[in-house]
Amino acid sequence: MKTLLLIGIGAGDPEHITVQAINALNRASVFFVLDKGQTAEDLVRLRLEICERYIREPAYRVVQVSDPQRDSSTPSYTQGVEDWHEQRAEVFQRLIEDELAEGESGAFLLWGEPGLYDSTLRILERVRANGCTGFDYEVIPGISSVQALAARHRVPLNGIGQPIRITTGRRLTAADLDNVVVMLDAHCAFQAFTQENLDIYWGAYLGTADEILIAGKLADVCEQIKHTREAARQRKGWIMDTYLLRRRLAPDL
Amino acid sequence: MKTLLLIGIGAGDPEHITVQAINALNRASVFFVLDKGQTAEDLVRLRLEICERYIREPAYRVVQVSDPQRDSSTPSYTQGVEDWHEQRAEVFQRLIEDELAEGESGAFLLWGEPGLYDSTLRILERVRANGCTGFDYEVIPGISSVQALAARHRVPLNGIGQPIRITTGRRLTAADLDNVVVMLDAHCAFQAFTQENLDIYWGAYLGTADEILIAGKLADVCEQIKHTREAARQRKGWIMDTYLLRRRLAPDL
Ligand SMILES: C[S@@+](CC[C@H](N)C(=O)[O-])C[C@H]1O[C@@H](n2cnc3c(N)ncnc32)[C@H](O)[C@@H]1O
Ligand SMILES: C[S@@+](CC[C@H](N)C(=O)[O-])C[C@H]1O[C@@H](n2cnc3c(N)ncnc32)[C@H](O)[C@@H]1O
Repeated sequence: MKTLLLIGIGAGDPEHITVQAINALNRASVFFVLDKGQTAEDLVRLRLEICERYIREPAYRVVQVSDPQRDSSTPSYTQGVEDWHEQRAEVFQRLIEDELAEGESGAFLLWGEPGLYDSTLRILERVRANGCTGFDYEVIPGISSVQALAARHRVPLNGIGQPIRITTGRRLTAADLDNVVVMLDAHCAFQAFTQENLDIYWGAYLGTADEILIAGKLADVCEQIKHTREAARQRKGWIMDTYLLRRRLAPDL
Repeated sequence: MKTLLLIGIGAGDPEHITVQAINALNRASVFFVLDKGQTAEDLVRLRLEICERYIREPAYRVVQVSDPQRDSSTPSYTQGVEDWHEQRAEVFQRLIEDELAEGESGAFLLWGEPGLYDSTLRILERVRANGCTGFDYEVIPGISSVQALAARHRVPLNGIGQPIRITTGRRLTAADLDNVVVMLDAHCAFQAFTQENLDIYWGAYLGTADEILIAGKLADVCEQIKHTREAARQRKGWIMDTYLLRRRLAPDL
């Protein structure tokens, strides 16, 4: 048997890592690093820093592969994702077959929490469905960017006894606004809702030295967030941000 | 200034703890342990074990206080929670004033993730609003039971590009069933939905030696979960369980 370890490493702060994740890092012989193009160079570096910092006997190999990019010209979003997953499944199968010996463990260091908007688990299911079954896998949870956001703003994720919703910029609708965390938003979807009585808790590069936090009444801080976001994105070449929108319980006086 | 550290300790497995949380444990002079009655004795013990395991120079004090119980006879749920929060705010204020010296840090070890169905943050806001402002506080995120559930079942929390919902047993409705995690459910709310084409991923005592996992088509495993749950609850005297419900994409053939 070969074993794959899907290790959640937290969302930016190397100290987000759990003891369970550190132990898993120390069981791995190989680290698979998926290189997603230039913008993510910083994120690859953070992964390697985590290996250096937490692995006690550094006898591991690092296999860096370019991750196929999603073809955003495909007309259907679902079909685009489908094709992309299939290509990634082929890459993963090759890694498992060629780069991992029997009895060895290979690790993927996954950003934040492996269960949250991360396709690795789904791709491994597909590798198995494609007939490559000589491996087992384990998931090690990690601190997500949602948790980093809530902790840095010191806000609960839910209203008392109320549901929590996490969604993407693409899918944010007025029906979500009582209480919603938004991820994967390249277009500042919040700006459509400045007429509503909302508070926003926004964070970029959470857990890193570049962390930026802005909170306030949405109507008051909307422009500030947009400008700050765009300036940061230009300066660093990439941005990762997430935010919580919450309806104010009492109307403003 | 006095500092309070709200430290997420994970949802049962002592190895869920993060490096950031371990560092915070080591900064605290006092640990406040809220004793919620006999059923939670095991959980108090786990907290003390975490202190023993991860604190390098054990010069800390432990202050154990009984946590006021919510009066479930109050007709209004909201009023009941309101009164309870006020009572807890008074307890917390007393702890801060009497048990913590200037310059000291006091820690609360919070189960799972501090932002998820945990009232500590709200109570500290209330303590401040009540005029006790001579303290600052920090939140350290922790692995939630939701993440432990997903990791142990090796399932993603979201469908591809789809929203995630987390709710309570009390609030679970048919509108949630595409994809929902349910917590705080004493009455097996899932049993109302066996006619729907759902998968359930259920877990109890996640991360502990008593962990139980059951997954399958809801209609097939509903009774098994109910029996297993009831037997476990009787055996141990308490239970903590959570589950993910997800609509099957393809109809059963
Ligand atoms: C593909 S998803 C992966 C999420 C990850 N699995 C997690 O648990 O945070 C990427 C999105 O996560 C959010 N994100 C991840 N890391 C972040 C960080 N350090 N600061 C702010 N947002 C972050 C952003 O919304 C980004 O678009
Ligand atoms: C008051 S909430 C606290 C949740 C906690 N802050 C977290 O992040 O998991 C308690 C609920 O969490 C869930 N829970 C907590 N720990 C659990 C565990 N080890 N196994 C299963 N469910 C758990 C149960 O649904 C329980 O009713």
